[in-house]
Amino acid sequence: MLIYLAIHQDKPCRVTDVAASYRISRNHLLKVALGLGRLGYMTATRGRTGGIALARRPEEINLGEVVRKMEVDFALTECMQTEGGLCAIAPACRLKRVASKALAAFLAVFDDYTLADITGNRDQLAGLLDLPRSMKAA
Amino acid sequence: MLIYLAIHQDKPCRVTDVAASYRISRNHLLKVALGLGRLGYMTATRGRTGGIALARRPEEINLGEVVRKMEVDFALTECMQTEGGLCAIAPACRLKRVASKALAAFLAVFDDYTLADITGNRDQLAGLLDLPRSMKAA
Repeated sequence: MLIYLAIHQDKPCRVTDVAASYRISRNHLLKVALGLGRLGYMTATRGRTGGIALARRPEEINLGEVVRKMEVDFALTECMQTEGGLCAIAPACRLKRVASKALAAFLAVFDDYTLADITGNRDQLAGLLDLPRSMKAA
Repeated sequence: MLIYLAIHQDKPCRVTDVAASYRISRNHLLKVALGLGRLGYMTATRGRTGGIALARRPEEINLGEVVRKMEVDFALTECMQTEGGLCAIAPACRLKRVASKALAAFLAVFDDYTLADITGNRDQLAGLLDLPRSMKAA
Protein backbone atom coordinates (compact mmCIF):
# COMPACT_ATOMS: atom_id res chain seq x y z
CA MET A 1 0.00 0.00 0.00
CA LEU A 2 2.85 2.41 0.83
CA ILE A 3 4.46 1.59 -2.54
CA TYR A 4 1.18 2.34 -4.31
CA LEU A 5 0.75 5.65 -2.50
CA ALA A 6 4.38 6.61 -3.16
CA ILE A 7 4.03 6.22 -6.92
CA HIS A 8 0.59 7.88 -7.02
CA GLN A 9 1.38 11.00 -5.04
CA ASP A 10 -0.06 13.16 -7.82
CA LYS A 11 -3.63 11.88 -7.56
CA PRO A 12 -6.08 11.00 -4.79
CA CYS A 13 -6.12 7.25 -4.10
CA ARG A 14 -8.84 4.97 -2.80
CA VAL A 15 -8.40 1.69 -0.93
CA THR A 16 -10.61 0.11 -3.61
CA ASP A 17 -8.09 1.09 -6.32
CA VAL A 18 -5.15 -0.26 -4.35
CA ALA A 19 -7.00 -3.55 -3.79
CA ALA A 20 -7.85 -3.82 -7.49
CA SER A 21 -4.29 -3.05 -8.60
CA TYR A 22 -2.74 -5.67 -6.35
CA ARG A 23 -5.73 -7.99 -6.78
CA ILE A 24 -6.03 -8.49 -3.04
CA SER A 25 -8.86 -8.31 -0.53
CA ARG A 26 -10.21 -4.79 0.11
CA ASN A 27 -11.14 -5.80 3.67
CA HIS A 28 -7.58 -6.86 4.38
CA LEU A 29 -6.27 -3.58 2.96
CA LEU A 30 -8.69 -1.57 5.08
CA LYS A 31 -7.07 -3.12 8.15
CA VAL A 32 -3.60 -2.31 6.80
CA ALA A 33 -4.73 1.27 6.08
CA LEU A 34 -6.03 1.63 9.61
CA GLY A 35 -2.67 0.50 11.00
CA LEU A 36 -0.70 2.80 8.69
CA GLY A 37 -2.94 5.72 9.63
CA ARG A 38 -2.58 5.03 13.34
CA LEU A 39 1.22 4.96 12.99
CA GLY A 40 1.25 8.28 11.14
CA TYR A 41 2.34 6.99 7.72
CA MET A 42 -0.94 7.70 5.96
CA THR A 43 -3.75 10.22 6.07
CA ALA A 44 -7.33 9.75 4.98
CA THR A 45 -9.72 12.51 3.94
CA ARG A 46 -13.45 11.99 3.58
CA GLY A 47 -15.76 13.07 0.81
CA ARG A 48 -16.07 12.83 -2.96
CA THR A 49 -12.63 14.33 -3.63
CA GLY A 50 -11.10 12.64 -0.58
CA GLY A 51 -8.92 9.57 -0.38
CA ILE A 52 -5.81 8.18 1.19
CA ALA A 53 -2.30 9.61 0.85
CA LEU A 54 1.15 9.38 2.41
CA ALA A 55 1.46 11.53 5.52
CA ARG A 56 5.24 11.92 5.00
CA ARG A 57 7.56 12.06 2.02
CA PRO A 58 8.83 8.60 0.88
CA GLU A 59 12.38 9.67 1.85
CA GLU A 60 11.16 10.03 5.42
CA ILE A 61 9.59 6.58 5.66
CA ASN A 62 12.21 4.12 6.86
CA LEU A 63 11.41 0.49 6.04
CA GLY A 64 12.97 -0.87 9.23
CA GLU A 65 10.70 1.37 11.24
CA VAL A 66 7.63 0.28 9.27
CA VAL A 67 8.45 -3.44 9.66
CA ARG A 68 9.09 -3.06 13.40
CA LYS A 69 5.86 -1.13 13.94
CA MET A 70 3.57 -3.14 11.67
CA GLU A 71 4.78 -6.67 12.55
CA VAL A 72 3.44 -7.26 16.02
CA ASP A 73 5.02 -10.66 16.61
CA PHE A 74 8.76 -11.18 16.18
CA ALA A 75 8.97 -14.14 18.55
CA LEU A 76 10.98 -16.77 16.66
CA THR A 77 10.88 -19.10 19.61
CA GLU A 78 8.62 -19.49 22.64
CA CYS A 79 11.21 -17.86 24.91
CA MET A 80 11.26 -14.70 22.78
CA GLN A 81 7.61 -13.95 23.52
CA THR A 82 6.89 -10.93 25.68
CA GLU A 83 5.60 -13.24 28.40
CA GLY A 84 8.85 -15.20 28.28
CA GLY A 85 7.48 -18.67 27.59
CA LEU A 86 8.06 -21.78 29.65
CA CYS A 87 11.15 -23.40 28.14
CA ALA A 88 13.16 -25.17 30.85
CA ILE A 89 16.57 -23.98 29.64
CA ALA A 90 15.61 -20.34 28.93
CA PRO A 91 17.77 -18.92 31.76
CA ALA A 92 20.94 -20.41 30.27
CA CYS A 93 20.03 -20.75 26.60
CA ARG A 94 22.60 -19.46 24.11
CA LEU A 95 20.40 -20.32 21.12
CA LYS A 96 18.06 -17.56 22.27
CA ARG A 97 20.94 -15.08 22.03
CA VAL A 98 21.85 -16.29 18.53
CA ALA A 99 18.19 -15.98 17.44
CA SER A 100 17.96 -12.42 18.84
CA LYS A 101 21.16 -11.48 17.00
CA ALA A 102 19.75 -12.97 13.77
CA LEU A 103 16.51 -11.01 14.15
CA ALA A 104 18.49 -7.80 14.71
CA ALA A 105 20.53 -8.48 11.54
CA PHE A 106 17.28 -9.06 9.62
CA LEU A 107 15.76 -5.77 10.75
CA ALA A 108 19.01 -3.87 10.21
CA VAL A 109 18.79 -4.59 6.48
CA PHE A 110 15.37 -2.89 6.30
CA ASP A 111 16.82 0.04 8.30
CA ASP A 112 19.08 0.79 5.33
CA TYR A 113 16.18 1.60 3.01
CA THR A 114 13.42 4.18 2.76
CA LEU A 115 10.20 4.00 0.76
CA ALA A 116 11.90 6.30 -1.76
CA ASP A 117 14.68 3.74 -2.33
CA ILE A 118 12.27 1.01 -3.35
CA THR A 119 10.06 3.21 -5.52
CA GLY A 120 12.82 4.85 -7.58
CA ASN A 121 11.59 2.78 -10.54
CA ARG A 122 8.27 4.64 -10.38
CA ASP A 123 7.36 4.33 -14.07
CA GLN A 124 7.99 0.61 -14.14
CA LEU A 125 5.89 0.04 -11.00
CA ALA A 126 3.12 2.34 -12.22
CA GLY A 127 3.05 0.43 -15.49
CA LEU A 128 2.41 -2.81 -13.62
CA LEU A 129 -0.12 -1.34 -11.16
CA ASP A 130 -2.14 0.73 -13.59
CA LEU A 131 -2.67 -1.82 -16.37
CA PRO A 132 -6.32 -2.06 -17.40
CA ARG A 133 -8.01 -4.96 -15.61
CA SER A 134 -8.58 -6.82 -18.91
CA MET A 135 -4.82 -6.86 -19.61
CA LYS A 136 -3.95 -8.06 -16.12
CA ALA A 137 -6.25 -11.03 -16.44
CA ALA A 138 -4.62 -12.05 -19.75
CA MET B 1 16.39 -31.71 21.04
CA LEU B 2 19.87 -31.24 19.57
CA ILE B 3 20.87 -29.24 22.67
CA TYR B 4 19.58 -32.06 24.90
CA LEU B 5 21.47 -34.71 22.96
CA ALA B 6 24.65 -32.60 22.93
CA ILE B 7 24.75 -32.31 26.70
CA HIS B 8 23.77 -35.96 27.27
CA GLN B 9 26.28 -37.63 24.97
CA ASP B 10 27.42 -39.93 27.77
CA LYS B 11 24.10 -41.75 28.21
CA PRO B 12 21.39 -43.19 25.96
CA CYS B 13 18.47 -40.77 25.54
CA ARG B 14 14.80 -41.36 24.88
CA VAL B 15 12.33 -38.99 23.22
CA THR B 16 10.18 -39.39 26.33
CA ASP B 17 12.98 -37.97 28.50
CA VAL B 18 13.55 -35.03 26.17
CA ALA B 19 9.82 -34.27 26.19
CA ALA B 20 9.70 -34.44 30.00
CA SER B 21 12.75 -32.21 30.43
CA TYR B 22 11.43 -29.48 28.13
CA ARG B 23 7.85 -30.12 29.23
CA ILE B 24 6.65 -30.31 25.63
CA SER B 25 4.55 -32.74 23.61
CA ARG B 26 6.19 -36.12 22.94
CA ASN B 27 4.26 -36.40 19.69
CA HIS B 28 5.66 -33.11 18.46
CA LEU B 29 9.18 -34.20 19.42
CA LEU B 30 8.75 -37.50 17.58
CA LYS B 31 8.15 -35.50 14.40
CA VAL B 32 11.22 -33.35 15.10
CA ALA B 33 13.27 -36.52 15.74
CA LEU B 34 12.10 -37.99 12.46
CA GLY B 35 13.22 -34.87 10.61
CA LEU B 36 16.58 -34.75 12.40
CA GLY B 37 17.14 -38.43 11.62
CA ARG B 38 16.25 -37.98 7.97
CA LEU B 39 18.72 -35.10 7.69
CA GLY B 40 21.52 -37.14 9.27
CA TYR B 41 21.82 -35.21 12.54
CA MET B 42 20.52 -37.98 14.76
CA THR B 43 20.55 -41.78 14.94
CA ALA B 44 18.07 -44.04 16.66
CA THR B 45 18.74 -47.58 17.89
CA ARG B 46 15.99 -49.95 18.92
CA GLY B 47 15.77 -52.19 21.95
CA ARG B 48 16.01 -51.94 25.70
CA THR B 49 19.45 -50.35 25.67
CA GLY B 50 18.70 -48.33 22.56
CA GLY B 51 17.80 -44.68 22.22
CA ILE B 52 18.51 -41.55 20.25
CA ALA B 53 21.88 -39.85 19.88
CA LEU B 54 23.68 -37.26 17.79
CA ALA B 55 24.97 -38.70 14.53
CA ARG B 56 27.79 -36.10 14.36
CA ARG B 57 29.89 -34.25 16.89
CA PRO B 58 28.35 -30.93 18.07
CA GLU B 59 31.29 -29.08 16.43
CA GLU B 60 30.18 -30.50 13.10
CA ILE B 61 26.55 -29.39 13.38
CA ASN B 62 26.23 -25.89 11.95
CA LEU B 63 23.14 -24.02 13.15
CA GLY B 64 22.63 -22.19 9.84
CA GLU B 65 22.48 -25.53 8.07
CA VAL B 66 20.01 -26.92 10.61
CA VAL B 67 17.72 -23.86 10.36
CA ARG B 68 17.81 -23.93 6.55
CA LYS B 69 17.05 -27.66 6.40
CA MET B 70 14.45 -27.84 9.17
CA GLU B 71 12.48 -24.68 8.36
CA VAL B 72 10.59 -25.52 5.22
CA ASP B 73 9.00 -22.13 4.63
CA PHE B 74 11.11 -18.97 4.45
CA ALA B 75 8.65 -17.01 2.29
CA LEU B 76 8.31 -13.64 4.04
CA THR B 77 6.02 -12.38 1.33
CA GLU B 78 3.77 -14.02 -1.24
CA CYS B 79 6.29 -13.34 -4.04
CA MET B 80 9.03 -15.25 -2.18
CA GLN B 81 7.07 -18.52 -2.36
CA THR B 82 8.49 -21.23 -4.62
CA GLU B 83 5.48 -20.84 -6.90
CA GLY B 84 6.19 -17.12 -7.17
CA GLY B 85 2.83 -15.76 -6.01
CA LEU B 86 0.56 -13.42 -7.88
CA CYS B 87 1.59 -9.92 -6.78
CA ALA B 88 1.13 -7.45 -9.63
CA ILE B 89 4.43 -5.63 -9.11
CA ALA B 90 6.62 -8.70 -8.52
CA PRO B 91 8.62 -8.24 -11.76
CA ALA B 92 9.82 -4.76 -10.72
CA CYS B 93 9.58 -4.96 -6.93
CA ARG B 94 12.60 -3.74 -5.00
CA LEU B 95 11.04 -4.59 -1.62
CA LYS B 96 11.36 -8.25 -2.58
CA ARG B 97 15.12 -7.74 -3.00
CA VAL B 98 15.39 -6.00 0.39
CA ALA B 99 13.45 -8.84 2.02
CA SER B 100 15.70 -11.48 0.42
CA LYS B 101 18.78 -9.61 1.62
CA ALA B 102 17.29 -9.41 5.15
CA LEU B 103 16.58 -13.16 5.16
CA ALA B 104 20.15 -13.87 4.04
CA ALA B 105 21.49 -11.67 6.88
CA PHE B 106 19.27 -13.54 9.35
CA LEU B 107 20.53 -16.96 8.26
CA ALA B 108 24.15 -15.77 8.10
CA VAL B 109 24.09 -15.17 11.86
CA PHE B 110 23.16 -18.82 12.49
CA ASP B 111 25.94 -19.86 10.06
CA ASP B 112 28.48 -18.46 12.53
CA TYR B 113 27.56 -20.97 15.25
CA THR B 114 27.71 -24.73 15.76
CA LEU B 115 25.83 -26.84 18.28
CA ALA B 116 29.07 -26.92 20.32
CA ASP B 117 29.06 -23.11 20.58
CA ILE B 118 25.63 -23.00 22.19
CA THR B 119 26.20 -25.95 24.54
CA GLY B 120 29.53 -24.83 25.98
CA ASN B 121 27.70 -24.14 29.26
CA ARG B 122 26.90 -27.86 29.52
CA ASP B 123 26.68 -28.07 33.32
CA GLN B 124 24.35 -25.10 33.55
CA LEU B 125 22.04 -26.51 30.85
CA ALA B 126 22.14 -30.01 32.35
CA GLY B 127 21.21 -28.54 35.73
CA LEU B 128 18.09 -27.00 34.21
CA LEU B 129 17.15 -30.05 32.12
CA ASP B 130 17.76 -32.73 34.69
CA LEU B 131 15.95 -31.24 37.69
CA PRO B 132 13.57 -33.70 39.32
CA ARG B 133 10.01 -33.17 38.04
CA SER B 134 8.82 -32.12 41.49
CA MET B 135 11.32 -29.24 41.57
CA LYS B 136 10.40 -28.08 38.07
CA ALA B 137 6.76 -27.79 39.00
CA ALA B 138 7.62 -25.69 42.06
